[in-house]
Amino acid sequence: MKVGILGGGQLGRMLLQAAANYTVKTYVLENDDDCPAAHLCHHFIKGDIKNFNDVYNFGKQLNALTIEIENVNIEALEKLESEGVKIYPNSAALKIIKNKILQKQFYQQYQIPTAAFTITNTIEELKTQASFLPAVHKIGEGGYDGKGVQLLHDETHIHKGFEGASVLEKMVKIKKEISIIVAMDSKGNTAIYPPAEMVADPVLNLLDYQISPAIIPEKTLWKAEAIARTVVKNLNSAGLFAVELFISDTDDVLVNETAPRVHNSGHHTIEANYCSQFDMLWRIILNYPLGNTKPILPSAIINLLGEENYNGNAVYQGLQDVMQFENIFVHLYGKTITKPGRKMGHITIMSSDYKDLTHKAHKIKQMLKVKS
Amino acid sequence: MKVGILGGGQLGRMLLQAAANYTVKTYVLENDDDCPAAHLCHHFIKGDIKNFNDVYNFGKQLNALTIEIENVNIEALEKLESEGVKIYPNSAALKIIKNKILQKQFYQQYQIPTAAFTITNTIEELKTQASFLPAVHKIGEGGYDGKGVQLLHDETHIHKGFEGASVLEKMVKIKKEISIIVAMDSKGNTAIYPPAEMVADPVLNLLDYQISPAIIPEKTLWKAEAIARTVVKNLNSAGLFAVELFISDTDDVLVNETAPRVHNSGHHTIEANYCSQFDMLWRIILNYPLGNTKPILPSAIINLLGEENYNGNAVYQGLQDVMQFENIFVHLYGKTITKPGRKMGHITIMSSDYKDLTHKAHKIKQMLKVKS
Repeated sequence: MKVGILGGGQLGRMLLQAAANYTVKTYVLENDDDCPAAHLCHHFIKGDIKNFNDVYNFGKQLNALTIEIENVNIEALEKLESEGVKIYPNSAALKIIKNKILQKQFYQQYQIPTAAFTITNTIEELKTQASFLPAVHKIGEGGYDGKGVQLLHDETHIHKGFEGASVLEKMVKIKKEISIIVAMDSKGNTAIYPPAEMVADPVLNLLDYQISPAIIPEKTLWKAEAIARTVVKNLNSAGLFAVELFISDTDDVLVNETAPRVHNSGHHTIEANYCSQFDMLWRIILNYPLGNTKPILPSAIINLLGEENYNGNAVYQGLQDVMQFENIFVHLYGKTITKPGRKMGHITIMSSDYKDLTHKAHKIKQMLKVKS
Repeated sequence: MKVGILGGGQLGRMLLQAAANYTVKTYVLENDDDCPAAHLCHHFIKGDIKNFNDVYNFGKQLNALTIEIENVNIEALEKLESEGVKIYPNSAALKIIKNKILQKQFYQQYQIPTAAFTITNTIEELKTQASFLPAVHKIGEGGYDGKGVQLLHDETHIHKGFEGASVLEKMVKIKKEISIIVAMDSKGNTAIYPPAEMVADPVLNLLDYQISPAIIPEKTLWKAEAIARTVVKNLNSAGLFAVELFISDTDDVLVNETAPRVHNSGHHTIEANYCSQFDMLWRIILNYPLGNTKPILPSAIINLLGEENYNGNAVYQGLQDVMQFENIFVHLYGKTITKPGRKMGHITIMSSDYKDLTHKAHKIKQMLKVKS
């Protein structure tokens, strides 16, 4: 079987590490031939994942395609799908998720709890929504990893908003932020991972560290699982999805957003769960039975982000010391150049003791810095 | 750092899967450009690992080299070493291990317990050793995976022996066969994995399935660990070594042989131990601290060998059913062609319950067949 991945970043890299457990022939389409995934596939094709011809020509030789970023040419995927190439997730689901406005309307349509929102098309329109603040302004298309998202606490922040179709979403008082990964195979069977609990960095608006399984009351867990499953069932597509959820201070569970792919919040599953999110997606694509989502042990993830004020060849300061720790797993993404906030790698910690996890997570965050 | 692997089989494949957790640039030298490891490295070079020029030219561009098979050109490695390329294991250790006669003499020299042996150079000489039977005849160089080894139970078997320098080793009454992986870094620090216990297939003389940690009395474990450590300390080389040991019916522990590389008996460490044998070797090569050898859970490995009477494009009969099992990990090596006895993949099972492990191992062996 020939399977392509649109995008060659770290998600592609980890997908390809897992692919080598099977006999699948792998293809990657990406503009940068020094990208993290370029050397781990059978065939690397240089091209633009947003360009119709590049994606179509890449896909027409393949049995199946998946993505590692949403920002791809949907029209090409639609044409490929009509010609029999399987797309994970399918183009209809991707179309909904790729556009934050359509995504919010999707939740509304299926009565999936999500924060109240309104649509704005210009900064001028945004100004008329002052009463809606504090709110989060999210650009409809093209946002990624903290880009295309602004927190508007009050009117003085409105200038930070976006021109162009955007979602203005009421800020929710959040007690916890969790993520649930749901896998759905081509027959509609689902498998659901235990939630991961996130601690975000308020400055970079990026995930700081994460603990899994999340420590939440059973009732909240049931609510969250039901919501995550409803999202994926209604997206009506085989594939792997990360449903990001807020637990409000009134214990409501709300969908923040959904990613239709392997996700940063699932990297701990490589070591800490019986079936990793990467293996799970291959099982779906290769028509194998879904795997076991149970954790082997609780785990934490620390993201390695490029330090502020460092640009250039990456140096991993403190790595030697961190690697002395027991039960930690290093994942460097092989990116030559570091930039402030760039995702350069992650560290997974496994322990039966949650205190040990958070203690080590804090220590590693202090010790390990990506500089240049 | 640029690191090369001599050989592109499944061991190379799994080494490269692990390498992608770091920033190392990987190179593979192998004659077959459709080999399991070819597509997972940064640079694949087609060439003969037994040829001086091929190995030397491959190695001189690199910082370090390792092997996935012993049968490589030692002279080229010696020259590279003299020019500053680090070799894991070093050429002196490799030279000893590569030749079964030198290997036995090494054990003798360091008073490491091993079965009594004598050297034969011709079948004629072998005939004069009838009183030494039952014994195992092993060709000095070039044997691999059951090739180059013959069991000579009595005189009628002598014709099966080898012309050329060989070891004739007294057959030991074996209670158990275990393997211990020992890692040694460049400073001489060692890390030792719990022993794996093997059940061999008497027909193909290949590993059948394996359980780890082995169930052996504490005293035997201590003996075995001490012997394994002594072997590696005296080989006096950084690298990863698998020391195969016999436990005799009189509870003596004897070295069978040592492999100076990642080993089939350590594949379970990918999922079942905190630091896999592959990750451990990278830690050594990249000058990181040694990892934690502790098991996360007990595990079993089933080797997937090509069925008798099937030659041609490999088909994995029963794979769908086996993948329904919980807590199993499939590793297919991506070899297109199956042959009787060819190693095509392995399955790891994890469970806290040894009964569950052996039960699943037997079931999987019955269900899963590599045919064509």
